[in-house]
Amino acid sequence: MQKNGYRIQFTSSRIRDLMYRTTFNPKKMDGDIILNLSVIEKKDLDDVLGIFKMVISSGLSVTPYVKVISEGESIGNLTVGNGKVGVGTVCSITIDGVLLKAGIPVHPKLGGVVQIRNGIPVRFTDVLTYVSTTVDPLEVLMSQGITSVSEMLRTGSGKVLANLRESPMVARDAIESTLSDLLDAGFSGILEVGEPNTRVLDIPIERDHLGIVVIGGTNPMAVVQEYGIPIDTSAMSRLIPFREMSRIEDLV
Amino acid sequence: MQKNGYRIQFTSSRIRDLMYRTTFNPKKMDGDIILNLSVIEKKDLDDVLGIFKMVISSGLSVTPYVKVISEGESIGNLTVGNGKVGVGTVCSITIDGVLLKAGIPVHPKLGGVVQIRNGIPVRFTDVLTYVSTTVDPLEVLMSQGITSVSEMLRTGSGKVLANLRESPMVARDAIESTLSDLLDAGFSGILEVGEPNTRVLDIPIERDHLGIVVIGGTNPMAVVQEYGIPIDTSAMSRLIPFREMSRIEDLV
Repeated sequence: MQKNGYRIQFTSSRIRDLMYRTTFNPKKMDGDIILNLSVIEKKDLDDVLGIFKMVISSGLSVTPYVKVISEGESIGNLTVGNGKVGVGTVCSITIDGVLLKAGIPVHPKLGGVVQIRNGIPVRFTDVLTYVSTTVDPLEVLMSQGITSVSEMLRTGSGKVLANLRESPMVARDAIESTLSDLLDAGFSGILEVGEPNTRVLDIPIERDHLGIVVIGGTNPMAVVQEYGIPIDTSAMSRLIPFREMSRIEDLV
Repeated sequence: MQKNGYRIQFTSSRIRDLMYRTTFNPKKMDGDIILNLSVIEKKDLDDVLGIFKMVISSGLSVTPYVKVISEGESIGNLTVGNGKVGVGTVCSITIDGVLLKAGIPVHPKLGGVVQIRNGIPVRFTDVLTYVSTTVDPLEVLMSQGITSVSEMLRTGSGKVLANLRESPMVARDAIESTLSDLLDAGFSGILEVGEPNTRVLDIPIERDHLGIVVIGGTNPMAVVQEYGIPIDTSAMSRLIPFREMSRIEDLV
């Protein structure tokens, strides 16, 4: 995680920064998206992309797009070291950026672990609110051994990474229209859009608001970690042009 | 971490439960303390106790007391498995329990990483507030690779686990007297008691309150992890009678 040298920065403040800088236009499929970036051993690349493909085809990712950064190549202030390779996925906060740019007030609230039973999301079992942590919730939760994304893929039941945002219910039509544009652009990771004034996956929502739960873009990375392959992940790492991403099917 | 089967429980609520159940009396050196419990490979026990001794003698622990739980032995609802052994340290929230039982309103606020430069605590660099996370902040932070407790031991500079609580300044005399009793009982891990209405290690404190920073009881575990020895830690795990703890010098 990048840090201000002198004062702690809560994740909520970093998210607002990234949302402002998101320029992705789902209709044109162009502009900048927020990337989750992992560094892995070069020798593990084929295995990792195979896992990514499996996770993505099961719908447990924000989009089917992946970015591979070769040994020695740079992205932002990171240069991929010797014997390493970078793999990136679209971060779900990109959706918040797109909602914001459509004029919809959106409040990313928390990241957590959602229990899925027979393909149906049941409830959040662990959460961290963005306003009160300086480390990214999903980055932290994926290294706690409490996800079971690979079990979810095998059996239809397990615990996956997801996050929740709130928007005022007056914006409902605009939200649905924007989410529909995002769906057309391949953003299939929207897990649940709640009814106004109703708990979403057991999390209370502010009065006259609705909750939107999106799959965490780091679920593919969580499975890699569950398989015991070394992986170093920075969620909400940086922005890159969407056109630099490739569909996973074109890579594996 | 133990969890309610049906509804998420934030760490702040679990802490209040543990504080209420703390019965340790520093003057009598008797009663129940809160334990951080780790499970390690039995073959690593000598190495782990050696590391604990080093960390404890450098003052980076709440107390010099350790609990060893043998293979097959039970503690609460946990039975130590085959080939494993449990090692426990006193959790710093014990101090909050003792302050509470002395009638002092105490509000455990956050856990985080404190940067130490040449032996002097400089500031918190990462924090998670208890009220907004269901996973223990220190447990989470020690698996993020952002601590450098072993470097701190070697060079006097590094990043260690610590936590912060607030109390009203009217209680200052009672706080100082209770902390002094705790110090006499071997609770040497108090890192900083702030001036009223003053930031503590760069964290703002509520009006007419003072902040108290205590070393995390899981720092010895963090060093074990930094050394690459497998260790599975549950911070704020359960309560045990203080008289079941042993001074580290009597074990190594």
